[in-house]
Amino acid sequence: MEESKLPNSALSVSKGVPQPPSVNPRLQKIKRRQLSTSDYITGIRNGDRSILGQAITIVESNLPQHVIESRSIIEGCLPYSGNSLRIGITGVPGVGKSSFIESMGTYITGIGKKLAVLAIDPSSDRSKGSILGDKTRMETLSANDRAFIRPSPSAGTLGGVARKTRESILLCEAAGFDVVFVETVGVGQSEIAVHSMVDFFLLLMLAGAGDELQGIKRGIMEMADLLAITKADGSNQDNAQRARAEYSSALHLFPASDSGWVPEVVTCSSHRNEGMAAIWDKMNAYHEFTTANWYFQKRRNKQSLYWMNESIEEGLKANFFGNSGVNSLLETYRNDVLDNSISPFTAAQRILEFYFKNPL
Amino acid sequence: MEESKLPNSALSVSKGVPQPPSVNPRLQKIKRRQLSTSDYITGIRNGDRSILGQAITIVESNLPQHVIESRSIIEGCLPYSGNSLRIGITGVPGVGKSSFIESMGTYITGIGKKLAVLAIDPSSDRSKGSILGDKTRMETLSANDRAFIRPSPSAGTLGGVARKTRESILLCEAAGFDVVFVETVGVGQSEIAVHSMVDFFLLLMLAGAGDELQGIKRGIMEMADLLAITKADGSNQDNAQRARAEYSSALHLFPASDSGWVPEVVTCSSHRNEGMAAIWDKMNAYHEFTTANWYFQKRRNKQSLYWMNESIEEGLKANFFGNSGVNSLLETYRNDVLDNSISPFTAAQRILEFYFKNPL
Repeated sequence: MEESKLPNSALSVSKGVPQPPSVNPRLQKIKRRQLSTSDYITGIRNGDRSILGQAITIVESNLPQHVIESRSIIEGCLPYSGNSLRIGITGVPGVGKSSFIESMGTYITGIGKKLAVLAIDPSSDRSKGSILGDKTRMETLSANDRAFIRPSPSAGTLGGVARKTRESILLCEAAGFDVVFVETVGVGQSEIAVHSMVDFFLLLMLAGAGDELQGIKRGIMEMADLLAITKADGSNQDNAQRARAEYSSALHLFPASDSGWVPEVVTCSSHRNEGMAAIWDKMNAYHEFTTANWYFQKRRNKQSLYWMNESIEEGLKANFFGNSGVNSLLETYRNDVLDNSISPFTAAQRILEFYFKNPL
Repeated sequence: MEESKLPNSALSVSKGVPQPPSVNPRLQKIKRRQLSTSDYITGIRNGDRSILGQAITIVESNLPQHVIESRSIIEGCLPYSGNSLRIGITGVPGVGKSSFIESMGTYITGIGKKLAVLAIDPSSDRSKGSILGDKTRMETLSANDRAFIRPSPSAGTLGGVARKTRESILLCEAAGFDVVFVETVGVGQSEIAVHSMVDFFLLLMLAGAGDELQGIKRGIMEMADLLAITKADGSNQDNAQRARAEYSSALHLFPASDSGWVPEVVTCSSHRNEGMAAIWDKMNAYHEFTTANWYFQKRRNKQSLYWMNESIEEGLKANFFGNSGVNSLLETYRNDVLDNSISPFTAAQRILEFYFKNPL
């Protein structure tokens, strides 16, 4: 929890990893604060993960000068972004997300791809299962020079955290990463935010359809493009196969997705590194399928406009809720609404009237 | 489609039905426009369905004087609202919603309950399956003096239509209706709006897990508190039983709902009036269960605050999008975002800066 707040947390994971030769040695010597916007953009474009990490720290910062600086960095990187396969990964705590990302990441980098791993976890409650704060569990991938692992931004509103993660995706793409994983905890609203920034959504599940499911919010299963039953090894293998069959037949009862893609259920073992190639093949098949039917680009366009609208709404609300008069009115009217002494609509109307007469 | 825009459309369904004796005969004689706010409130409180229908027409109107008048009527009715069981009903076109509501409504009124039937259908495209515009298909219920059937408000934004439906629920409750059905088409976002205004969500489904499902949006199945397989009669009976078994086992794979209630699957036949008592029992069992575990009131409180927040957001957006300078900027930036020549976030930032400097 603590470490995600350290500005250099992204650096530590690439410690000891040789930098690509194209990186300007001058940039490595000077201190972070001395880098200009164009130094950042050049560094990112050259694939310098140390500079990429620092730039993401600026994107994540709420300091006014960082907000302005991050805009310039993002706009500078934007023309070089968009060329990755963006993959959302979710699953309840205990499903083995860290081991899966480690095994899957090792496979993907092994076939020559560059992989960035980001996270959304607005709760910042590590005990709930976000594994990216706990880098010791991703030792192999952390030391892999084709991988970049970034812990979740520190706590904030989901909207804010999600926006920052989406901006970080753009920077990772400008840095040449071919695949971006966005990890989420599987217990809340963050899945919907992630779904609106990725191309493909992978749900990791445990064998056995009992208590393990309690943690997954309703509706998440229906967002998945692929379900993978984890820990399909040893004495658990039969269970996993049974779960695969059960979920497969359940998926047939689900309505078709907008993409036309039919989700499947596979099994895998991170421990034995089994099933990773098949999952990667599915991801590529999805990419090809949705590129061919134009869904891929349509969805990305829709996501871009979605994020523009979301940012506008966030800005409107920030201004509204930043009005101290509004806040004391809200407090009063909330109680009146719960008492049933005013309707929610009239309460809203009165607060809005005050707001438009008393701008900040 | 036309008839839902007629101010008297709610009247026609109660034509020929004897009014309760408590209705002031003066109110029935004078013209609609001459009723005062307190006449409306008294009429509604007395269960006068003609006045209720007129009041809903005012609630649905966008004319400024009606908006003000509707606020007063709603606030006057609010203390007498809240005492119904609010039930959302959805299903794809062809599932037999109108027949189901007819059969279920006849059962419920037959045991002495008063039933109001409302609808949300922002598309207002009757061919898509909203049956409430087609009253000829609900003849029995239309002529039932314990039932009040109101066609969907005319087209508008989903937020606007949903707000009006929720306000209409309050008026129906003040008029003494024990049960309120809110019907929705099952093909879009309106299910989520309905889900946020009802206590119980019923999904009607057809036997056979093939093409019939294509119309239901993902995620709707997981919102249901009860699934009912319709048309379980004649040669379709075996299919219906098979579907019931399939959906039952699929539901077990779903995560638990927040209410702690475990959704079930039942079959019914509107044609033969079979299964209605069992469905009504489930609704009551749900009511008892969630009242006992406090979920019922907690959810209603949450919904009230949700609608206050929604109304605030709607008001903020209406002001923003009502700004003509904002609109021409939006047009430009939308294209730039799709061209990838500006990020969605920077575009939003620039438009917001303009807006706050140039208020309406």
